[in-house]
Amino acid sequence: MTRAWPEKGNGAGAGSGAQVWQGQAGSEEGFLCRRGCWALEWAAQGRGESPGSLEGLKSRAEPALRDLGELGTVRGRVMVGLEELRGALHTETQEQKGCAVVLNPSLTTLNSFISLLGSLGDISKSFRDLTDPAEINSYFAFNVTSALCLTATALQAFGARPGSSRTVVNVSSLCAIKPFKNWALYCSGKASRDMMFQVLALEEPDVRVLNYAPGPLDTDMQLLARTKTGDPEMRQFFQSLQESGQLIDCAVSAQKLVNLLEEDTFPSGAHVDFYDI
Amino acid sequence: MTRAWPEKGNGAGAGSGAQVWQGQAGSEEGFLCRRGCWALEWAAQGRGESPGSLEGLKSRAEPALRDLGELGTVRGRVMVGLEELRGALHTETQEQKGCAVVLNPSLTTLNSFISLLGSLGDISKSFRDLTDPAEINSYFAFNVTSALCLTATALQAFGARPGSSRTVVNVSSLCAIKPFKNWALYCSGKASRDMMFQVLALEEPDVRVLNYAPGPLDTDMQLLARTKTGDPEMRQFFQSLQESGQLIDCAVSAQKLVNLLEEDTFPSGAHVDFYDI
Repeated sequence: MTRAWPEKGNGAGAGSGAQVWQGQAGSEEGFLCRRGCWALEWAAQGRGESPGSLEGLKSRAEPALRDLGELGTVRGRVMVGLEELRGALHTETQEQKGCAVVLNPSLTTLNSFISLLGSLGDISKSFRDLTDPAEINSYFAFNVTSALCLTATALQAFGARPGSSRTVVNVSSLCAIKPFKNWALYCSGKASRDMMFQVLALEEPDVRVLNYAPGPLDTDMQLLARTKTGDPEMRQFFQSLQESGQLIDCAVSAQKLVNLLEEDTFPSGAHVDFYDI
Repeated sequence: MTRAWPEKGNGAGAGSGAQVWQGQAGSEEGFLCRRGCWALEWAAQGRGESPGSLEGLKSRAEPALRDLGELGTVRGRVMVGLEELRGALHTETQEQKGCAVVLNPSLTTLNSFISLLGSLGDISKSFRDLTDPAEINSYFAFNVTSALCLTATALQAFGARPGSSRTVVNVSSLCAIKPFKNWALYCSGKASRDMMFQVLALEEPDVRVLNYAPGPLDTDMQLLARTKTGDPEMRQFFQSLQESGQLIDCAVSAQKLVNLLEEDTFPSGAHVDFYDI
């Protein structure tokens, strides 16, 4: 089944109620909600715990929801249906956890699927402590498999339409290209995602692909970084980021992302960092 | 439990019979065999099938075994116990599949753990076809989780010794840094591994870490590449590599790796390609 990437006012859920699209990823569970021209694939970000119950996921969702709220604040015309997002969470299988919310359709030139999904992993551990296959498999299932399968499913679901562009944004990190002590899982997961989205850019020339590293955002992920990272020097580094006011407000970074998408001049597949622009 | 990284003649299995070290990765299954100063973590490489029975794994093992044989041929004094390797295969859990063989102890300056594990994945598929979480999870378990857990376990088992260096080699690929159509899984797996070994290099300054890309080896992996890659242009590219004699003999690449390790001047954590040297 192939659907057109939704355009302004064309989404089935363009009214007040988000509609759930039934996914193709081996499940009857729906994880895409449609409303307008933006689709934001979403999951708990930056908390490091393994996914659990729906309630647990909702509680971990707050930082990501706040980020989305900031994004809404920036643009005014970009609105996130937080309650609908909460209602759309699906947890039956870890791999398919996540959902998509569709934002205000006034951004008609942006038909974007944004992959925000991620967790830090246990940053108290060093590489040599990572001997439990179940822990590692769980991390990659949640952070890499989900991003790949959800994006692939969305691309199948919303096919190319003449005159209508599609953009896929992977929320990346400096960690995708630079190693950090105690962050083997996070760094390797982000590197893995950057690369698979580069492959997507090669394969699908009509899809615009961006790996956007939003900078050190002032979220709970940074709180974890400065308190839980095993290496004391790294903890101090993250602490100093906060104390010197170098953490970035989500709204500022979200604005840069919006600008990038609107200018639409990045090479498809590029890794673009907040500090690059 | 911490053991010294084995030196010349110091390995418990320095005689004719390989000894199995009982691993720590949540299992009583042993997957390290000790004999001398080199440990080669190993698993079926380049066949693309999902791992299965012990017999199936053995049959898929042949290309990797041949590579190791070539390595032995190059040096003369480097010998791989193929029969012992076969006997040491473990398949109870996918993540822990693989083993280590230990080579001739005459290379006393090289106390190296070499991670060769890998598979291509289904290269008939493009990114947008990768919607099955079970397939993706299986790929990363076999190609990333195993490499991490086996290496971490080896580092725990064979601790630092004054005056004795330890080297970890990740057999990488150009695909770790350059995307290829239809190779989303292989590229992202290799990128993920390169990054986690970079983190290791940061965390363990007394361990020498090398990401070695051996070039396009004349193995069954290239046969798969030129016959099974979904994109016709990519298939033609791989075909042309063979037809123009650009595929590299395993022995030649293995010799370069040995030279790299003996010279021991690479920056720890570096990605070094066959063509760089």
